[in-house]
Amino acid sequence: MPPRNAPQLKVRATAALGAEIITVGAGSTERLRRAQELAAQHGYAVVPPYNDEQIIAGQGTVGLEILEDLPDVDLVLVPTGGGGLISGIASALKLSGSRAKIIGIEPELANDAQQSFRKGEIVELPAERVSSTLADGLRTQSVGPINFEHIRKFVDDMITVTEDEIRSAMRDMAMNAHLVAEPSGAVTFAAWLFHQKELPESEKAVVVVSGGNADPRLLAELFATEPGGTGLQ
Amino acid sequence: MPPRNAPQLKVRATAALGAEIITVGAGSTERLRRAQELAAQHGYAVVPPYNDEQIIAGQGTVGLEILEDLPDVDLVLVPTGGGGLISGIASALKLSGSRAKIIGIEPELANDAQQSFRKGEIVELPAERVSSTLADGLRTQSVGPINFEHIRKFVDDMITVTEDEIRSAMRDMAMNAHLVAEPSGAVTFAAWLFHQKELPESEKAVVVVSGGNADPRLLAELFATEPGGTGLQ
Repeated sequence: MPPRNAPQLKVRATAALGAEIITVGAGSTERLRRAQELAAQHGYAVVPPYNDEQIIAGQGTVGLEILEDLPDVDLVLVPTGGGGLISGIASALKLSGSRAKIIGIEPELANDAQQSFRKGEIVELPAERVSSTLADGLRTQSVGPINFEHIRKFVDDMITVTEDEIRSAMRDMAMNAHLVAEPSGAVTFAAWLFHQKELPESEKAVVVVSGGNADPRLLAELFATEPGGTGLQ
Repeated sequence: MPPRNAPQLKVRATAALGAEIITVGAGSTERLRRAQELAAQHGYAVVPPYNDEQIIAGQGTVGLEILEDLPDVDLVLVPTGGGGLISGIASALKLSGSRAKIIGIEPELANDAQQSFRKGEIVELPAERVSSTLADGLRTQSVGPINFEHIRKFVDDMITVTEDEIRSAMRDMAMNAHLVAEPSGAVTFAAWLFHQKELPESEKAVVVVSGGNADPRLLAELFATEPGGTGLQ
């Protein structure tokens, strides 16, 4: 059930898997209500995007994988929208005894989690504002209450990146790491590239890049303005 | 020591590593002669691109890595230019007792190894012809004599792909596997996508993608004409 402003790429990909697509407004409250109505009518299961313990537990497996590959990781950057992924990763790491700092990364234009983190209570941003970031996967107006509790307990800081930094990180990853990330996935690498001073010192950092469904028109635009890259790792 | 038609992206990347760049003609004989002259004058070591036992042995480690990750691999597709990479991979696999079929993949426009393989002797193609493929890493006029012996002994077949198939494979990898490959790297996936009928049956196939330094202008062009992809793995 995508909002009206969902990227067509993702809508088509979901349809290709056999889903029936029902488009609703850009607000998350409206979406949830409609999903619950349909679930009640047809006996569907609602799969919430983030404010749910099972979703958080599932995303926690990313944290366990990080620990498996890099037991002495000391810094993890996580893209933050509604807060599901960071809740899972942060809990998994901290409750496993890791001393890694966990930093959530948001687009400046959708920094609801940062504002909530700083204020100590959930802040809600206007849909129009959060919809204006390129990072469509992070266009949440507020973190979920369950996520907020996890963030308060297990997350060390929240940092934001600009739209230009996101574009630049996408270009850099494609040219030099040969990876295509969507804007929501590239926010963490953008923070790594442009916000070192705000990050804790680290020896072994992990940047979680979640989301690779980049719009080809955006990629075309990014590469058309690319001077050439170094081609080096 | 790049030929005149070397991609600027690679020339710049090499210069960025501190190299002094000396440009020579597009023919490989001319390049080798000049390299040997400079080596004699200055005491440099010549690092040959493919017709060399140490280079082949080094590239053989790719074959050992494949075996480590997938001991029961039964098909390996390898991009083929001068034949160094495929010589190494094929020898490593076959001499380790693997029953995998090894297939070399070339652009149709630079199918010197295929022609040599079929004819049983080294065939040389005109520099102008091989220079016309997008796959700049595979623009060899002929395989090396040492490589030809390895290919005859250890390689099962040679297959070619068209320029359109290479472009299509690059787009598909970027959109669906989220990987940026250069044309020379994408030839193997192009063969997998478009030449299944020419490939031996397999349960566990490996496609070696060697080369990720894609020209951003080419990527921009490919994405500008991309309908959207499915975004699915």
